Formats: sequence, structure tokens, C-alpha cells
Amino acid sequence: MRRKLLVALLAGGAVTVLGASPAFAQGGIKAAEVQAVLDNIWILVAAVLVFFMHIGFTLVETGLTRAKNAAAIVMKNLMTLIIGVLAFGVIGFTLAFGGGSDWLGYQGWFLDPGYFDFGNLTIPTYFIFQAAFAATAATIVSGAMAERTKFISYMIFAAILTGIIYPIVAHWVWGGGWLSKLDTPFIDFAGSTVVHSTGAWAALMGVWFLGPRIGKYGPDGKPRAILGHSIPFAIIGVLVLFFGWFGFNGGSQLAADFEVGRIALTTAFAGVAGGMGALIVVWLTTGKPDVGMTGNGILGGLVGITAGCSAVNNWGAVIIGALAGTLVVFAVLYFDRVAKLDDPVGAISVHGACGVFGTLMVGFFATEGGLFYGGGVDQLVSQLIGIVAVLAFVVVTTAIVFFVIKATIGLRVGPEEEMEGLDVLEHGAPGYAGDTVTVGASFAAE
Amino acid sequence: MRRKLLVALLAGGAVTVLGASPAFAQGGIKAAEVQAVLDNIWILVAAVLVFFMHIGFTLVETGLTRAKNAAAIVMKNLMTLIIGVLAFGVIGFTLAFGGGSDWLGYQGWFLDPGYFDFGNLTIPTYFIFQAAFAATAATIVSGAMAERTKFISYMIFAAILTGIIYPIVAHWVWGGGWLSKLDTPFIDFAGSTVVHSTGAWAALMGVWFLGPRIGKYGPDGKPRAILGHSIPFAIIGVLVLFFGWFGFNGGSQLAADFEVGRIALTTAFAGVAGGMGALIVVWLTTGKPDVGMTGNGILGGLVGITAGCSAVNNWGAVIIGALAGTLVVFAVLYFDRVAKLDDPVGAISVHGACGVFGTLMVGFFATEGGLFYGGGVDQLVSQLIGIVAVLAFVVVTTAIVFFVIKATIGLRVGPEEEMEGLDVLEHGAPGYAGDTVTVGASFAAE
Amino acid sequence: MRRKLLVALLAGGAVTVLGASPAFAQGGIKAAEVQAVLDNIWILVAAVLVFFMHIGFTLVETGLTRAKNAAAIVMKNLMTLIIGVLAFGVIGFTLAFGGGSDWLGYQGWFLDPGYFDFGNLTIPTYFIFQAAFAATAATIVSGAMAERTKFISYMIFAAILTGIIYPIVAHWVWGGGWLSKLDTPFIDFAGSTVVHSTGAWAALMGVWFLGPRIGKYGPDGKPRAILGHSIPFAIIGVLVLFFGWFGFNGGSQLAADFEVGRIALTTAFAGVAGGMGALIVVWLTTGKPDVGMTGNGILGGLVGITAGCSAVNNWGAVIIGALAGTLVVFAVLYFDRVAKLDDPVGAISVHGACGVFGTLMVGFFATEGGLFYGGGVDQLVSQLIGIVAVLAFVVVTTAIVFFVIKATIGLRVGPEEEMEGLDVLEHGAPGYAGDTVTVGASFAAE
Repeated sequence: MRRKLLVALLAGGAVTVLGASPAFAQGGIKAAEVQAVLDNIWILVAAVLVFFMHIGFTLVETGLTRAKNAAAIVMKNLMTLIIGVLAFGVIGFTLAFGGGSDWLGYQGWFLDPGYFDFGNLTIPTYFIFQAAFAATAATIVSGAMAERTKFISYMIFAAILTGIIYPIVAHWVWGGGWLSKLDTPFIDFAGSTVVHSTGAWAALMGVWFLGPRIGKYGPDGKPRAILGHSIPFAIIGVLVLFFGWFGFNGGSQLAADFEVGRIALTTAFAGVAGGMGALIVVWLTTGKPDVGMTGNGILGGLVGITAGCSAVNNWGAVIIGALAGTLVVFAVLYFDRVAKLDDPVGAISVHGACGVFGTLMVGFFATEGGLFYGGGVDQLVSQLIGIVAVLAFVVVTTAIVFFVIKATIGLRVGPEEEMEGLDVLEHGAPGYAGDTVTVGASFAAE
Repeated sequence: MRRKLLVALLAGGAVTVLGASPAFAQGGIKAAEVQAVLDNIWILVAAVLVFFMHIGFTLVETGLTRAKNAAAIVMKNLMTLIIGVLAFGVIGFTLAFGGGSDWLGYQGWFLDPGYFDFGNLTIPTYFIFQAAFAATAATIVSGAMAERTKFISYMIFAAILTGIIYPIVAHWVWGGGWLSKLDTPFIDFAGSTVVHSTGAWAALMGVWFLGPRIGKYGPDGKPRAILGHSIPFAIIGVLVLFFGWFGFNGGSQLAADFEVGRIALTTAFAGVAGGMGALIVVWLTTGKPDVGMTGNGILGGLVGITAGCSAVNNWGAVIIGALAGTLVVFAVLYFDRVAKLDDPVGAISVHGACGVFGTLMVGFFATEGGLFYGGGVDQLVSQLIGIVAVLAFVVVTTAIVFFVIKATIGLRVGPEEEMEGLDVLEHGAPGYAGDTVTVGASFAAE
Repeated sequence: MRRKLLVALLAGGAVTVLGASPAFAQGGIKAAEVQAVLDNIWILVAAVLVFFMHIGFTLVETGLTRAKNAAAIVMKNLMTLIIGVLAFGVIGFTLAFGGGSDWLGYQGWFLDPGYFDFGNLTIPTYFIFQAAFAATAATIVSGAMAERTKFISYMIFAAILTGIIYPIVAHWVWGGGWLSKLDTPFIDFAGSTVVHSTGAWAALMGVWFLGPRIGKYGPDGKPRAILGHSIPFAIIGVLVLFFGWFGFNGGSQLAADFEVGRIALTTAFAGVAGGMGALIVVWLTTGKPDVGMTGNGILGGLVGITAGCSAVNNWGAVIIGALAGTLVVFAVLYFDRVAKLDDPVGAISVHGACGVFGTLMVGFFATEGGLFYGGGVDQLVSQLIGIVAVLAFVVVTTAIVFFVIKATIGLRVGPEEEMEGLDVLEHGAPGYAGDTVTVGASFAAE
């Protein structure tokens, strides 16, 4: 019965080709139609890869926090996806990609097929890719606010971020809004600013309104390390994110063409250079090749190349990645020791600092229009305008949201709950139960 | 050497196009051939995604059970894949997709290239996709029967289910059998009934013949919670399954076309709506936003949309998903408290209750032929016939198999083994060994 | 803005097709161009799957070793990818695929677009696929040398292996070198010898120079089992590798065509047959269905089919896989008990023994030219030449490298560090920290 679809699609005669090939129908089908189908299949695969990144975020955030909060963390990541898809579907998609003004879209609701036109891409293909992006912005926040945020408060915030705030930023850059209409349009190919910085500024405000975890800063004001309970989880999460990033950046081409491989390669180079940069810096600074920092260096390199993955060449990608990885180390130390903002997973450093840095670097390294390639400062100025505009908009709007949540239902769990762990008191059951392990055998002799 | 294949394939001259594009050969190649190749590549990618779902099942089942049985659980999942592919290859594929009667296929053995014709899809592509489906039906059973089933007995059962019972059901619906020949053919696009209910009814019989785990029901008959040892495993497993489901449903189109994105989107909407539905219901009922139940709600939504993902629209998908997620909560409570069937992972609720529900909903929500769209009750009646026929067939056949296994080699491990854990006594080594963790530091101050 | 790319690419008029289809541009586009794009997209997807295999290796190696070294293991896997991509990009790619002599390439540096020509594949697509392969060869070594190797020493070795040694082997077989120019060319389709044996011989030399872990061999010289700390990690890693292998073998076709599905199917059959073979043998030998050995059997089957996945038929694949799985069991016992080479994860057995075996079997089972199909011994002789040549080259070169490293900076950590675990002393923080688990409740009654 299912096969009839094929037959109906491909009207005409059938020929048999050599070897293992099936007999395929020939006739009316045109190359342009096959290309359009291929565009949709590739973007769907890319969307599925971006979707998979939520597993990476879940692993990183769970691994870098304590076991007593493991169920709460995975639950927040799960809800980010649920709320993100629903809120972006109900309102965000129109704000981002519907027609309207330079500031936001307000035409074409609920994926109205009579309204939207995405060229070769169908509305469902386009939507599913963009919805996975929206959820990514929110998940960054869940990491920074881990181990002390009320579940219901996070849910409300995630709905507002994915339904309203992120979509407006996306509209400015990708939906035909004002940043795309500058004389030299702002370039943020896959979202160093639109996705990652937006998430990071929201995270920054969240951490600011929340305050640090109990015990994070001693009476002397000095930071204490609160170790994550599973480095394997965290690093496998980094690898999962790297894997998904090929869809994140490669899919942002919004077409299947010869450029996709080049974008994937700048992405790969920046990611590995970021890891290497962070490793060298942290090793020289602390004397130890820190595992978590190397992982965050990879993520920093990936965030850094996201804006320019299509505009820069391989050399540019390696340099941007290496510098972004280096930057992560100093940013983490700065937020931890100087700014005293308690961000358990380093999300603000990875997604904020490297997001800004990567967006800015497009102005230098873009092979067309970049300062280092004879393009003058126009692109650089546009990049600065975009960075500052998104920063200002997200900081102000999320501050309002967090302020209202804090003043009404509250943002933070009680101290008893925080000490005991969120798993049991918020969600009713521990993340790790009962006979988790057989401990005891002295293993020195093994 | 490898490149010669390309050259041979694409006879004709070569031109160079601009930019990053390679020089590609032109000439005799037809758009219909490229479309046929694209169909095969997409279905192979979809098959690989379905294959990946076995990692999701493994994580969910391991996470929701106890650490002392972790090696046994992952081993059963591994064997499900091994046995599934072999048994489906040796006998099941012919029973399902070979020519024959309305009841089963019996022509064309061992993937005989002279016999089968799947339109644009080659036999290997078609087989690998279907074999991954067959193994899925069996893996559902392993979860419900976890923590007390003999290894050899499960292996035998899995071979019979994937080699004979599931293929016959698949033949009825997808292989040209009687359910596809009703006046209004039974609709089960990707297998809410064919795969999920088949697995669930087999699981139901398995649990019935096995009895509950020691300690599950107290002397007063009241159920006791036996907590899973890793909620992170379970929830990451849910996300892995969600990821793979895009291949499960999207690949069931059996072609690369513009419909695939639409199917992926109804799938995504139903999944997130299922999670939201379960969360709200469990929160209102128990006072806690339970993590595991929310995860099962997502799976319930996904099972629910599997039958109708191509036939319903986005609104239908959200409603079906939300109701299926709600249903999971009540079904789990029912089987646990009223029916007293000990199903450690909730597989019967997720795959059985939601499988039936989703299949039935096609009769209401199908935009062509559904009751809510003016189509009358014909489709609904066909859906009921299919549901009941599969239920009856699977319950009877699996009951016979379990009865015979129980009467001969036995179905259940001894009580000592169950108390001690299956890992050491059945498989010879613990799932978690030696110095798994460094416990002890009081972490209240952290 | 992004959409303009599409419009520019697809010049010409636009028509609307029925239903969910988008309006797609028609006109100048040719079927051969769509095919070339499809080739690139498929190979990119395959490269991403191979990339994902590094998660599988990480899980297998972490699961089969002790918790006190977990962070060190995941870090080595992370560095393998980082170093592999960088070293292969800077020097390896030219040695492997640049023009030059029969022995190595030396023309065309840094992915020079004016030099390389890979038919339909762009340089970035081709490079990213091959770089993921190079890193695979190195990661095999990290498993065998686990739990006692100095971090810096491993990094240096990985750079030399992925930058120089592996690329030269790849040049011989895939880059137009002497093994591809034998009268009957050596067949190693996806790298049983080129990737897996190369990694295994390097691992063999590493283990030889390192010596066994403290406590592995008692004063009586008898081996003691050092159990891995997480069988779930190890088995999920096996499933991840199986998943990625579809890209490893299927992508080695270096094109999107009807053969890819057939290659995927021989791969799947060999993998499951390998698991079944190992299970039966280990069960009969030891009396227990060992979980880890079954997992290694799957990997052995996959390594075994890698050389011949395109040259043999389904029956050949099942036989090669089953025999390779059997071989793993005996090889592990041999290296552990007789040769007394301490290989914690069985890498030398899986990748070396099965790599040789699979490469050799092509001489028997290739449907064109294999001894069992009337092809005489020519192919078999060529296979033997390739196996021995790679063995000799890799053993000699890696022995020199390990000798120099050992004589200068040292290869092995100090005994205190090894006893305490590499995580804290080498990397500064434990892999599992603080309150990892809530232990204690007696669970016998559960």
C-alpha cells in the first residue's frame, strides 16, 4: 500500500539498470524537483542533529553538577525541549519569521500554509529546524541556573524566552528585520549572537537574580570548587554537541549544496582548535591539563565559529576557534573569581563571551568584507551594532521577566531543598536510587 | 580506485562550476535515477536512526531498574538486536513481505533478488529498515520482563517474536495482507499497532506468566515503588528515542519526498504534547512533577502519533499526543495498583495503551476519512478491527510460547539470583564493579 | 538573506506542485549536479556518523576500565579527535592523498583547491570523512594503553600516528600507492587493515613498551581480572559504534548510489553474527554468557567485514562476522593468558586479529576474484602482501616512536599515580566527585 506513493510520484515507464540497482520509474520528474526534495531531506537531517544537541546539553549540565540534583537537571532539559517546541510553535515562529515590521513579525499564525514561503523548504521542514534552535537558546539558561532554581519558575521563563524574546532577536537577523537591513548587513550565519549570546545574556540575568549556590563563596568571599559528579557524562556531552553542531551550522545553509561541506569543515577546525587552545592555556596557568576546561574550550570554539562558519576560510576558523578556546578559560575564571557569578557549567563564558567574540571576528576574518581581507571596517561596525543591540534587548527583557517571577512565585528553592538536593524535594524521587553501586573493595592492589 | 565507481556511473563530459563546487560529470544521468538514489539514502539514514533507538531502549530500561541487574538488561537489549536481525533475515522477512496469502507470506526466501520488488528501494535498504522495526517490537518485551527473566528463555522468545509473530502482523498491514484489503483499509502508518502494540501484548503475556518481582507487592497486596537506579540514563534514553523516532515515522514514508518533513513535525508535536500532558496530570494527581512519568508521557505521545503521523494535521497531532501522555499516567497506575502486573518500565502502558489509543484516533482525526473531518465511521471501524485482530493474535500466540517455555526450561530465575542480582549469577560479572565511586564526603556544605 | 542562495542557485521560473510541496525553482539545474550534491551530502552525513564513533570508543574504554581513571580516559579520547583532525589536516592529508610516489604523497598542502580532485566530492567533504578515519586509528591505541599512560606521551604519539604513520598506510591502499597497483590490487574497502590493524599494531607496541597494569599479573604470573566500572557504558558504546559503522563502511563508497544499502546490510549481518559467535563460544567455554565478550564479538564482526563489505555477499558477511566474533574470544584469552599483554579493552584482539582475519577473508569470499567463487589465489596473495606490509611498517615505526618517547619524557605514570588513579594526579580532579550516589539502603527486600 505504501509503495503506491512511489508509483504515483514517479509516473512513466521503468527501466532496469545494472547490478544491485532497483528498477526505477522514469518520466516527468525534473532535476529541480529532486533538488528541492534533497534540500528538505538535508535540512530535516540537520534539524534532527540539532534536536540531538539537547542530549549533549543534558549530559554536560548533569555531569558538571552534583548527583543530588541529577533528576532535576535532566527534567529541566526535557522541559526546555517540550516548552520550546510548543511556545515557538504557538507564538515564536510568527514573531520570528512572519511578515510585519523591522522589529517583529505578526502576520501568518500557526504555520499557515497560505502565508509562509521558504523557497524550496516546506513549512514543516523549516519550522522543525528553527524550533530546535529556539530550544537551544533556552537550554543554555538551565545550565547556568542549575542546582537552585524552582522548577515552575524555570518553565515560565523558558516559555517566554522561546516564545517571545528569542524569536524577536531571530527576526532582527534572520526574519528580514532591521539588522539584516543595515547598509552592511549584520552577519550571524548560524547564531553566535542570535542563539548563543541570547541564551547567555538570559543566563547572566538569571544568575544575577538567583545568587550563588549555598557554599559556593566562603565567608571570605573566595570561590570554592563544587565538583561535577560525572566527568564522563560532561565530556560525552561535549562530543554529542560537537556531533550535533554539524547540523546546527551545516543546516543553517538552509539548502543542500556544495557549501555545506565547507561549513562543516570550518566548524570542525574551530572546535578542535578551541579544545587545544583551552588545554594549553589551562595547563600553563594551573599546571594541570584540566578535562572540563578542555571540553568547554571545544564548545567555545564551536560557539565562536557559528557566526562566521560560512564567511571565513579554514585558517580563519582555526584562529577564531583557538582564540575562543583561550577566552573560555579566562572568562570562566573572571565570572567565578571577580564577578562572583555562580555559573556551574560555564555557560555564560562559553555561549556569551565566545558568542560575542565569534560574531566580532567575522568583521576581521570574513573573506568578503572582513578587515583582514581588505574590506575596511564597515562589517566590523555592523557586527558591533548587532552584538550590542542583542545584548541590550535580552538583558533588559529577561531582567524584567526574572524580576517579576522573583517578586511573585519566587525564583529559588528554599535552603533545605537546596542542601538536600532538588531531586527528592522538588520531583519526589532521587536521580540515583537504592543500590546504585557496590562500593567497598579496596582497589589499590588491582 | 574507489573513484572509478563514480566515473563509471556518470559517463559523459565534465564541466567546472563556480566557487567551491567540484567538477562533476554530466551526461546520461536522469533525474528519476537521482530521485531513486535519494530514496535509498534517506531510508538508509532512517533505518540507522531506528537502529539507534535500541540505545534509547537500553538506556530507559537500564535507568528504570536496579544497578544489580544493569549488565543483564543491557545484554538483553544487545541480544534483541542480534536475534532480531538474524531471525527476521532468515524467516521473518519472507513471512512479512514475501508473496503468499492474505495471512502470511511464503514466497521469496533469503532476500532473493529475483523475487522482491520494492519500487525505488533496493532489497538491502528495505530489509535493513524493516529489520530494525522487528527488533523494536521485541525490545519492548525485555523492559517489561526486566529483573527476573532467564536469559536463555528471553532469547528463545525474542527469536520467535521477531521471526514469526511480528512478521505475520506486519504482513497483514504492510505486506499486502487482509487488513490492508478491508474496504476501508486499516491505517497504521508507522506501527502504533504493528510494532508497539505487538510488543506490548507480548510484554503483557510475559509479565503475566512471570509474576511480579520479589518485594514488589507487600503481604497486604499493596504495590511498593522499586526505584530505578539512574534517572539520567532513563531521560537521556527518552531523548534518544525521540531522536530516533524521526527515522521511525519519517522513514515509513518509504521515499524521500516533501511529505517527510510534515510527518516529522506531527511526530515532534505529539511527543512534546505527550510530555506536557503527562506532566500536568501527574503533578495534579501526586503533587510532584515526576520526572520518569514525564519521560513516559513523551514516549506515549510518540507511540500515539505513530499510526496517524501522515494522516492527521498538526492540531490532531497535538491533541493525540497530549491525550496519550495523559493516558500513560492512568495506565501505569492501573497496571501497578489494580491489575497488579509488575512492569518495571511502564512498557505495557506506553506501547500498549497508547498504541491502541493512537491507532483508534486515526479514525477520528485523519483529515481524509476521519470522523471529525466528515468521513463517517468506516475508518474507525477498520481501526477497531485491526486493533482487536492484532491483540487477539499476539495474546494467543505469545501465551502459547510463554507457556511452553515456562513448562520446559523455565521462564524465571531462582529467588537467590533475583535477590543477588542477575548480573553476577547469570552473566558472571557485575554491571558496576570495584571502585565505582568515591563516596563519603558530606556534601551538605558544598 | 539566506534564501537568496537558493534563488541564485536555481535560476529560472517557479511552479507550484500539489499538496505540501513548496514552489521550487526550475530551469538550468541538471540531474548530474543534483547527484553531485547528493554525493557530498551523503558523505558528510557518513563523516558525521564516523565522528560519532568517537563517542562509542569513549564509552567502551571508560566502561571497561576503573572509575579512578574515568576522566583520564575520556580526556585521551577527546584529545585523539582534536589532535587527529589537526595533525591530519596539517600534514597527514597530503601524505595520504597528495600526489607523489608509490610510497607517500608530497604534493598539495593544506587542502590546496588547485591541487586535489576527488570527482564529485568537494575537498572539505572528502577531508572531513578521511580525518574522522585517521582519528579512529589513534583511538584504538588509547584503549589498549589505558590506566597507566602519561597524558603528554599519548598526545605526542597520537600526533605522529595520525599525522604520519596512518596517512602513509592510507596512501598505499587508498591514495594511489603501491598496494593499489599490484597486479591484483589489495582490497580493503573501508579499512580492516588500513584503519583497524594499523591502530591495533600501534596498540600492540604501546602495550609492549608499557608493560601490564600493577596487579594485573600475580606473583605466579597468572592474570587477574580487573573489572570495568560500568558495563552499561561499555555496551552502549558498542551500540554507538555499530550505529556509526554504517557511516564508516557505507561512506567508504565515496558516493551516494544503490550500492550503499548493500554495504550497510553486509555490515549489519557481520556485526550481529559476530556478537552471536562470541556469545556461543564464550558461553560454551566459560559456562556464562559474558556481556563484555559479546559486545567485543559485535565489534570483531564489524572490524572483520570492513575490508570486504562491498566485495562479499550476505552469506559471506554472516560467515566472516561469526568467525571474527569467535576469534575475538580466543584472541582475548591468548593475549591475556599466554602473551601476557595487558590490553584492558581487548583492542588488539578486536581490531588486530579481526582486522587481519577480515582482510584475508576477502581473498576467499569476494564474489569477484575470491577463492570460493572460482577466482584462484591471486586475490588471497595480494591480501597477504597487504596485511604483512602494513604489519611490518606499523610495528617498526611505532616501536621507534615509543622507544624514543620512553627514553626521553617517559611513557608511563609513576606507581603512586597509577594506584591512586590518573584522574586526580594527572588532571587535577576526579572523574566522579563528591556525592555521586546515595548508597546504603539494603535492597535485598526490594
